[in-house]
Amino acid sequence: MAHWLRFEHAGVAKFGTLQGDTVTVHEGDMYAAPKATTQTVSLAQVKLLPPTAASKMVALWNNFHAMAAKFKLSIPEEPLYLIKSPSSFMASGETIRRPRSYQGRVVFEGEIGVVIGKRCKEVSESEAADYVFGYTCVNDVTAFELINKDSSFAQWTRAKSFDTFGPFGPVVATGLDPMTLSIKTTVNGEERQNYPVSDMIFPPLRLVSMISQDLTLLPGDVITCGTSIGAGSLKPDSTVDVTIDGIGRLTNRFE
Amino acid sequence: MAHWLRFEHAGVAKFGTLQGDTVTVHEGDMYAAPKATTQTVSLAQVKLLPPTAASKMVALWNNFHAMAAKFKLSIPEEPLYLIKSPSSFMASGETIRRPRSYQGRVVFEGEIGVVIGKRCKEVSESEAADYVFGYTCVNDVTAFELINKDSSFAQWTRAKSFDTFGPFGPVVATGLDPMTLSIKTTVNGEERQNYPVSDMIFPPLRLVSMISQDLTLLPGDVITCGTSIGAGSLKPDSTVDVTIDGIGRLTNRFE
Repeated sequence: MAHWLRFEHAGVAKFGTLQGDTVTVHEGDMYAAPKATTQTVSLAQVKLLPPTAASKMVALWNNFHAMAAKFKLSIPEEPLYLIKSPSSFMASGETIRRPRSYQGRVVFEGEIGVVIGKRCKEVSESEAADYVFGYTCVNDVTAFELINKDSSFAQWTRAKSFDTFGPFGPVVATGLDPMTLSIKTTVNGEERQNYPVSDMIFPPLRLVSMISQDLTLLPGDVITCGTSIGAGSLKPDSTVDVTIDGIGRLTNRFE
Repeated sequence: MAHWLRFEHAGVAKFGTLQGDTVTVHEGDMYAAPKATTQTVSLAQVKLLPPTAASKMVALWNNFHAMAAKFKLSIPEEPLYLIKSPSSFMASGETIRRPRSYQGRVVFEGEIGVVIGKRCKEVSESEAADYVFGYTCVNDVTAFELINKDSSFAQWTRAKSFDTFGPFGPVVATGLDPMTLSIKTTVNGEERQNYPVSDMIFPPLRLVSMISQDLTLLPGDVITCGTSIGAGSLKPDSTVDVTIDGIGRLTNRFE
């Protein structure tokens, strides 16, 4: 089990592992035999980056039984997803900003993200674990009122792709059994979401398998598994944290 | 005016300009002061790559007056778009393949793509031309029957993101006025689409401006401007060409 992170130190992008507040700088390919260097830096000295340079983030909709029951949604036969723009990605500690063009509700959605570790195409569910690098925390920020603003075309992609609407991190944790985890979201310290991965309609390894039938997943890509009940609006100048014990705490202000 | 392309030659990825059948290899940054080398190769000696390494392709829906009229769609107030997965991108000459999991209609949509040349965020329409590198041909291949298969969630992203469903190229043409161009699509040599850019609801520079209000566009990113009337199904073992005079011909087989 390890906690991997990407960061800038003295202006240079690097990656490494985190233990307590100490980062051990690594070299090579994070997904394939990375090598520890002798350099360590303190977490306080680095600027976090998103923990992977994902080529895509696949975002699920309607993937929790509790959410489906609350909103009387039918249980989907296949994963329902969109792709968030990579320009929305940012690190823990950065600020979620309302786009100038949108005055409606901005909604937080605390989620767990599956991080791919190997090029992955048409894998079975039983093989899927071999293609997973680890798990991370995601806030699938959404301009909620845009989704159905135009009755002819649901604007899922746009609502979830504004710059700063894709924070994830702070780390990718490896060696975890995701089915034992829970996702907790707080706003200004107050708990708003607390739900288990085990309530997923399509659990993580089934998602990897099913989505890999459609499109090739690459190392660093993220499948964010959808949110459950409790997602809600953010007021300006609030802080939203997505915490998964065993991974860490993704913290972002909203202005 | 120039025609830029990316390719592999003797196993190495390179870029350059095309005149007739001769490629002049360039070095540096294709978008910022690329330098011609003394090396030329024949087009027949290279393996084409997609002409840019796009971080994203933004794909428009309902962006032509003729299409809106034919299908009685209302004229949208703002661009309606999704993001195609980068894993769908491929070059002219490569083969579009039906996903194993889908037996329905596979539809070609000939389109023009705007290629971004400079990091672009919240630019005005009058500034937008400064951020455009050039224009390319796109086939926005679509698994048509998936879009509305689930009545609760329109699967635009998935229908358009299968591997091989995002061919574009063969080149990016610079120094063109897009408003004078027409997009022509043929299947096995028979004309199926022939429509002018001037019929767009949101023309290219307005799209760049409006989409840049939502998300940061990067050099190489593509906005594919939507299709007009005539898009239709592909039969197995057919060849679909998207031709824009002044740019070139994107040709792909469908198996």
